[in-house]
Amino acid sequence: MTSVARNDSTDIKYDRAQTLLRQLFDAAVTSALPENCVPPALPTPPRGRTMVVGAGKASAAMARVVEQNWDGPIEGLVITRHGHGVPCERIEVAEAGHPIPDEAGVAATQKLIALLEGLTEDDLVLFLISGGGSSLLTAPPPGVSLSEIQAMTTQLLRSGATIQQMNCVRKHVSMVAGGKLAGRARPAKLLTLAISDVPGDNPATVASGPTVPDHTTRHEALETLKMLGITPGPGIRKWLERGESETSGPTGDNGDEFKIIASPQKALQAAADAARLAGYSPLVLSSAIEGEAREVATMHAAIAMQVKLYSQPVATPCILLSGGETSVTVKGSGRGGRNTEFLLSLANALDGTPGIYALAADTDGIDGTEANAGAIIGPDTLSTAKKMGVSGTAALTNSDSYGFFNAIDALLVTGPTYTNVNDFRAILIDSTPDKRT
Amino acid sequence: MTSVARNDSTDIKYDRAQTLLRQLFDAAVTSALPENCVPPALPTPPRGRTMVVGAGKASAAMARVVEQNWDGPIEGLVITRHGHGVPCERIEVAEAGHPIPDEAGVAATQKLIALLEGLTEDDLVLFLISGGGSSLLTAPPPGVSLSEIQAMTTQLLRSGATIQQMNCVRKHVSMVAGGKLAGRARPAKLLTLAISDVPGDNPATVASGPTVPDHTTRHEALETLKMLGITPGPGIRKWLERGESETSGPTGDNGDEFKIIASPQKALQAAADAARLAGYSPLVLSSAIEGEAREVATMHAAIAMQVKLYSQPVATPCILLSGGETSVTVKGSGRGGRNTEFLLSLANALDGTPGIYALAADTDGIDGTEANAGAIIGPDTLSTAKKMGVSGTAALTNSDSYGFFNAIDALLVTGPTYTNVNDFRAILIDSTPDKRT
Repeated sequence: MTSVARNDSTDIKYDRAQTLLRQLFDAAVTSALPENCVPPALPTPPRGRTMVVGAGKASAAMARVVEQNWDGPIEGLVITRHGHGVPCERIEVAEAGHPIPDEAGVAATQKLIALLEGLTEDDLVLFLISGGGSSLLTAPPPGVSLSEIQAMTTQLLRSGATIQQMNCVRKHVSMVAGGKLAGRARPAKLLTLAISDVPGDNPATVASGPTVPDHTTRHEALETLKMLGITPGPGIRKWLERGESETSGPTGDNGDEFKIIASPQKALQAAADAARLAGYSPLVLSSAIEGEAREVATMHAAIAMQVKLYSQPVATPCILLSGGETSVTVKGSGRGGRNTEFLLSLANALDGTPGIYALAADTDGIDGTEANAGAIIGPDTLSTAKKMGVSGTAALTNSDSYGFFNAIDALLVTGPTYTNVNDFRAILIDSTPDKRT
Repeated sequence: MTSVARNDSTDIKYDRAQTLLRQLFDAAVTSALPENCVPPALPTPPRGRTMVVGAGKASAAMARVVEQNWDGPIEGLVITRHGHGVPCERIEVAEAGHPIPDEAGVAATQKLIALLEGLTEDDLVLFLISGGGSSLLTAPPPGVSLSEIQAMTTQLLRSGATIQQMNCVRKHVSMVAGGKLAGRARPAKLLTLAISDVPGDNPATVASGPTVPDHTTRHEALETLKMLGITPGPGIRKWLERGESETSGPTGDNGDEFKIIASPQKALQAAADAARLAGYSPLVLSSAIEGEAREVATMHAAIAMQVKLYSQPVATPCILLSGGETSVTVKGSGRGGRNTEFLLSLANALDGTPGIYALAADTDGIDGTEANAGAIIGPDTLSTAKKMGVSGTAALTNSDSYGFFNAIDALLVTGPTYTNVNDFRAILIDSTPDKRT
């Protein structure tokens, strides 16, 4: 998190706004860094073994913090995304594919399952979970090939499916998701520490809830695929037609614990505190916004304009904050993540309105498949682009938000942050009067 | 505005919430009724003739109020939607097609233009404009047939185009829109009284701005059609390729006046005042929300859930208010307007969360093409429907929001209100704890 997005504008206000937005993003990410949120949640070591397992974009960073703060023997394996690994001394770190599962993920998951065999009541399983775990923890059911899962995941990601829809399907096409991993850990005591990246912080949804009882059914999974227009491979279809594919369902109290140690809400709260310190009234709209990125942006623009014109729902100078996870239904051949798509649509809707600046970025540091976390816009975004022959409308039509912000050098590049509390959006609205006729 | 939506629920809270929501809607509509907003805006009569012309869903009701409050001779013609006419004594009322223009609209517009001929500097033209005027005031350019305009309008309405996009095209395929009518009224003095139904109350946008200079170009109109994937008829294409189709562009100060006498913002303000009186904190999100109705609903749901879970951006008990005009990209063979589509998507997203109720309706009393103004939802909406074998998800997939609310008898039916300040949405959130596990 060292490089800062640049912009050719020499406007001092722009620089100040950009710096503040970046500080708010940093405050949000910092609240969710493993070094800050893991230590207070650690239990006292058990009489027996301590087995650390986990999966997610933050799992390696979490494992290292556990090691550094643990008194006594410790062992285990965590799976993180390619490029998100950090060196651990006693816990093995495997890297695997995200958002599309790969062979490395299948192999690491098999190894992780094997580590849970033979544990006793005196042992503790510390399960470190964070966003991205769904694809990193890949255990294909009997008769289902990895390539079928890859094809289905690709289609799910492009369908505009909600997180609930995605998870319902993924839970039923896995031997670990939807509570199945918890069963494998018994009779050891199980404590899950979760960095949540999902709307509402529902434990059953973070990384498709490997340690949490599932309430959805395989029929709902089949229905969801049908509604999204996705035809799964024959192995998946046959598996979902078998009763065995049913997830565990509600289980009784067995002493398992689940702690959410960082979340979108806590991150927005940290940013709100930082905004207040800087003299801006923060207004948290929601930490759980879903929906098409470009449409979500249109509504954010409408609220920002309401602030500007009528001092509603909050007076300037202020910062509107929101989190959650939008989706992008790809419309063209361009490149871009949901945060840059959001910002491009927002810039188009605001159409150069003075005094409004915005940052949107993925708190994991990677917006979609490119190397940027997000981008920053200001009143000059569209005019700067126009001078370079780049049209905001055309770029949005072609889903080429990455190309757009790359062209005007307004990408926000942080590198992996080793945590993930989902998307972060901040809109700064200054009291500048609108001088346009 | 007499009939009230019924619901089989015997829950007292439901009835109370429903009644309050209905009172807020009525407060919004009342602020925009011609009898309340026209009289304070009337000028002193001129030395010469007073010619009243106009178009829009409220134009006949406005004309009647002008007649009743006018001292001296008065004459003219206003065009309103079929079914929105009210009897006037001295001003002729014509009814025409909306949202698709018809022959009646073309004939009435010709007659209206003829009335403006031969006026002098001593005369006053009172132009009464309101939403819907774009299609009621139909003057096809040379070589363009009504059927071509009808076909293009149908495609525009189904394309999910924004109001700006619609108006840019319509202004260039008309002999009166985009400021051209103002030219025909000279040298008489021109006063436009507008009941605005457009985001931001831009005079150039209300009814495609017949009396307001236009800043868009025919090239933008052609580009917009292309972007929306609409191929206009050959007459329209040829016309737009001619320089003559250019709208007037900015004109100098000529003493013309334009007054917005009612607007979405004023209506929301009236509802906010009523909410406060009832003990609910009102929060106006925006009076100008555009975008896909189902997506706009998802974000409203996220904000409502944030209120419920974290008392942000406002604490319960509260009312979230918003206005503007959403669009519906029709996805199935069902029926429904943008307000019922919004509510159906909202109900799906809220998924029965206790204590949240909502009303969405078109302030003109007609949501789309059906006879209802909108509908009302509560925590029981989905479960009531389910008992009747009606699925909220399936209805939304099929764009059948009218069928859904008709089946559960939750439509809001008011009949024409004779005004129009666009969509009205109110979400009531009570302090009821969420008792679900």
